[in-house]
Amino acid sequence: MSAQSEFDREIALDAADGEPGTYRGQLGEGWRIGGGINGGLLLALAGHALRRELGETSADGIPGHSDPMAISAYYLTPGVPGAVTVRTDTVRRGRAVSTGQASLVQEDETGREVERVRVLATYGDLAAVDGDATTTATPPQLPDPEACVSAAQAPPQFLKHATLLERLDLRLDPATTGWAVGKPSGNGVIRGWFRMADGREPDPLLLLLAVDALPPVAFELGLPGWTPTLELTAHVRCRPAPGWLRVNLTSRTLSGGYLEEDAEVWDSEGRLVALSRQLARATSPRR
Amino acid sequence: MSAQSEFDREIALDAADGEPGTYRGQLGEGWRIGGGINGGLLLALAGHALRRELGETSADGIPGHSDPMAISAYYLTPGVPGAVTVRTDTVRRGRAVSTGQASLVQEDETGREVERVRVLATYGDLAAVDGDATTTATPPQLPDPEACVSAAQAPPQFLKHATLLERLDLRLDPATTGWAVGKPSGNGVIRGWFRMADGREPDPLLLLLAVDALPPVAFELGLPGWTPTLELTAHVRCRPAPGWLRVNLTSRTLSGGYLEEDAEVWDSEGRLVALSRQLARATSPRR
Repeated sequence: MSAQSEFDREIALDAADGEPGTYRGQLGEGWRIGGGINGGLLLALAGHALRRELGETSADGIPGHSDPMAISAYYLTPGVPGAVTVRTDTVRRGRAVSTGQASLVQEDETGREVERVRVLATYGDLAAVDGDATTTATPPQLPDPEACVSAAQAPPQFLKHATLLERLDLRLDPATTGWAVGKPSGNGVIRGWFRMADGREPDPLLLLLAVDALPPVAFELGLPGWTPTLELTAHVRCRPAPGWLRVNLTSRTLSGGYLEEDAEVWDSEGRLVALSRQLARATSPRR
Repeated sequence: MSAQSEFDREIALDAADGEPGTYRGQLGEGWRIGGGINGGLLLALAGHALRRELGETSADGIPGHSDPMAISAYYLTPGVPGAVTVRTDTVRRGRAVSTGQASLVQEDETGREVERVRVLATYGDLAAVDGDATTTATPPQLPDPEACVSAAQAPPQFLKHATLLERLDLRLDPATTGWAVGKPSGNGVIRGWFRMADGREPDPLLLLLAVDALPPVAFELGLPGWTPTLELTAHVRCRPAPGWLRVNLTSRTLSGGYLEEDAEVWDSEGRLVALSRQLARATSPRR
């Protein structure tokens, strides 16, 4: 993993002196989307802290667990650029898997600590999982990346609030980008190719960004407003191969002002590498 | 809600004297499945404690939130019959939603405290949600309950470890019960009607049981062993109408010894009232 990649620099953490399980980082300006820092990036940051915490061999010699198998984030307040602290706590160390908790906090302008995200996760070791899976799922059918729509072609009023898109090379299936020209299909599907603009290859932590980095599927349901995430849970099913990822977003039900967004992520070898579901709030369009 | 129902007696909690946010209950023998107390019942118990905690009007006059909109449980060790303590913690009180955490613990035979489940959840108020939803989802097509297979007809070696089934009136679609006669379809689908045997009507807490109360979908994939849940997240989308629920379980991918199980719950008015996904471990059959 290159320490020079934009993603790795953004999720870099220093262990806090004298505070076991506490890590400090810095959120940059380049990962904004809508009203705050992208939720997938915050999840990857918390996921990195938990890898540090749960990945080490325990005092009684049990090997650590480095891969997030299931991770749930409850979003409390929007993250903003600046210093960030992640406090982790080991809930249970086991032989096959370990469970931990993380709390991501920032200080407001008065120096008061405000929690951004609370996370629970179970980590394991996906090194042994070769992706030899029994599955009835099929990868999304997409035109070649060259025939897809680059996210950089999104409307300027959207890009203004979306510095995140400069970090990514997103190519959306034109069949799912009607929203960009004011003609959402209403189908509740957005799919596309995903990779980092600087070539950083995927691994389990990057998958935590990938599940929440496309334009919200709500756009294609005719809801062009900000859709803040209340909760997102991701399952990483195997370590991804290098190369393009394919991401398929779907939503089926909007009720009481809330909708679910399901993401599937497929790697370049055609394996289903991650699944996620989030509950998001549909809001009025921002002008 | 009748305090006399088996379910309400099982999730009954007393506030612990002098320990704010702590509740004590008692797990009975009648909710066993496989190696421990049913995971959905434990989720409902934690969900009840969080309703007590988050449902009260706050000191500064913000109305409480009584309905679990998103709830995630990380299962650590199997629950057993006996005394149980649920410690809750308010993570954030908001106007629209509030977030809380719960830890469900029991004492082992030496008096040492062992954590069973760690839970995060966001609660809101579903009273205003009339289920007038925009959805492309369709309820499962099932034969009438009379034409379905009662779970009481399951093999004796299964029922022996499944006192839970005596609490439920489950009627499974015969097209999805090949596993019961040694001929699993391999389709990864189990669906059926669900209600409580004593007539207790559904509400959001009962939905937390309903998402994890059918035979595991792994059975229909030809995996007859115990499939312990690592993590389960449920979204309650509206309050269910009285009467039968329909539950549809699906699984698509088994990889590295783990599979996901998705549940959809539909009420008697044809509304999608809950969605859940769990990550479970496939084990060797128990003889």
